[in-house]
Amino acid sequence: MIQAAIPNAPTIEVCFTPVLYSHRLTTENYVVVIVDILRATTAICSAFQNGVEKIIPVASIDEAHKYKAKGFLVAAERDGKVLDFADFGNSPFNFIKDEVKGKTIVYSTTNGTQAIEMAKDAESIAIGAFSNLSVLTNYLLRKNKNVVVLCAGWKNKFNLEDSLFAGALTAKLLMSGKFSCFCDAAIGAMDLWSNAKTNLLGYIEKCSHRHRLKKLGLDDVLEHCFTIDAASVVPVLKEKELINVQTR
Amino acid sequence: MIQAAIPNAPTIEVCFTPVLYSHRLTTENYVVVIVDILRATTAICSAFQNGVEKIIPVASIDEAHKYKAKGFLVAAERDGKVLDFADFGNSPFNFIKDEVKGKTIVYSTTNGTQAIEMAKDAESIAIGAFSNLSVLTNYLLRKNKNVVVLCAGWKNKFNLEDSLFAGALTAKLLMSGKFSCFCDAAIGAMDLWSNAKTNLLGYIEKCSHRHRLKKLGLDDVLEHCFTIDAASVVPVLKEKELINVQTR
Repeated sequence: MIQAAIPNAPTIEVCFTPVLYSHRLTTENYVVVIVDILRATTAICSAFQNGVEKIIPVASIDEAHKYKAKGFLVAAERDGKVLDFADFGNSPFNFIKDEVKGKTIVYSTTNGTQAIEMAKDAESIAIGAFSNLSVLTNYLLRKNKNVVVLCAGWKNKFNLEDSLFAGALTAKLLMSGKFSCFCDAAIGAMDLWSNAKTNLLGYIEKCSHRHRLKKLGLDDVLEHCFTIDAASVVPVLKEKELINVQTR
Repeated sequence: MIQAAIPNAPTIEVCFTPVLYSHRLTTENYVVVIVDILRATTAICSAFQNGVEKIIPVASIDEAHKYKAKGFLVAAERDGKVLDFADFGNSPFNFIKDEVKGKTIVYSTTNGTQAIEMAKDAESIAIGAFSNLSVLTNYLLRKNKNVVVLCAGWKNKFNLEDSLFAGALTAKLLMSGKFSCFCDAAIGAMDLWSNAKTNLLGYIEKCSHRHRLKKLGLDDVLEHCFTIDAASVVPVLKEKELINVQTR
């Protein structure tokens, strides 16, 4: 049964957009999972799967610019467009090229890195995408702490693709029998996921950001972003840098 | 097809909690529909259906107290508990008694009236509940303006019951063929509604506020709050007072 308490079990809570994060109920002993399916967190998982060493997330364009001046590889975009000084934008395809293997990438995006910045006070911050759903679930089960899923959304509006992932993760954690849930957003997300999961790419046609990307000619990444368990990585923030804590 | 534009058609957008209202896309030529199913907006519809003349919504306890001193009937509660100076709380059952017929009621609640306060800049503000779903839909079709559904939520968290109503209203407006929708929240709400509608009271067992009311002994109102089309009223704000604009 949903909304039931398992004694002493950690809880799962979902924030559909960053502005809802400050209204969460979970305030102690928690891991934040950042989600920005189209495309930041998918790109980060793809990067580590491709052997990237580290990713330094930065929230401002200014910071990204300074790193570029120091000689770093920089991925930066706003509203889906690559910034002129950057090496590339946040299409996951840029992160799976041979030339980024073993490198450190500085990464600034519209929504994703700002969400990371916001969650700084959590015990730890992990990156979630459909591509690392199962290994992330296992990581969270090992941690045995409360989980707050922070969806990047779109300019603080609810979006379907991040919410579907939140629902998929909630379903997996509750299925383990080791988590409790008292959060309507998590329950709603799980219901949306149960509607979508048998035909995920079909369902995604309903998403406004899918159409935004289409207009920008950036929708070649859809299949990549909605492929489940293609990456055996758990990117986690350690002292302002993302590293992969999943051993191969 | 969803997310398709009907040329020049008004749009529907859903805000799952008040804090998301300032991030909406719709900023011109719009009607706001306030939703607080458990229990404020349901109670307001029940009141007008019972022949209440006017309802004066106030956001603060202090204001409610001043009206009480002037001799008004006052309905006021916080966190589901009736305030000591008030005549009654916001159970819809208080509003369907014979003694309130033809009266003016001053009404302050945890979430509902604060949402009304927030939406002041809209062209008009209407009250939505399952009980007035069909007459409200017809009112909005006649208005032919953009619609923003503002869910009161619970302390700025997403709640299922208000979101289900938002989904039901979105479905009805889109079914008319006279509205467009580019809002993922509206699409998600509609999906949740399609899961819930065949067994609404069963679905409501998932809602955290349903369990909150149960603990407070206030869950006798569930059937009343989830009965569709029991009230042939459209409460609308006119100069700080709610009146019923639906002619009988």
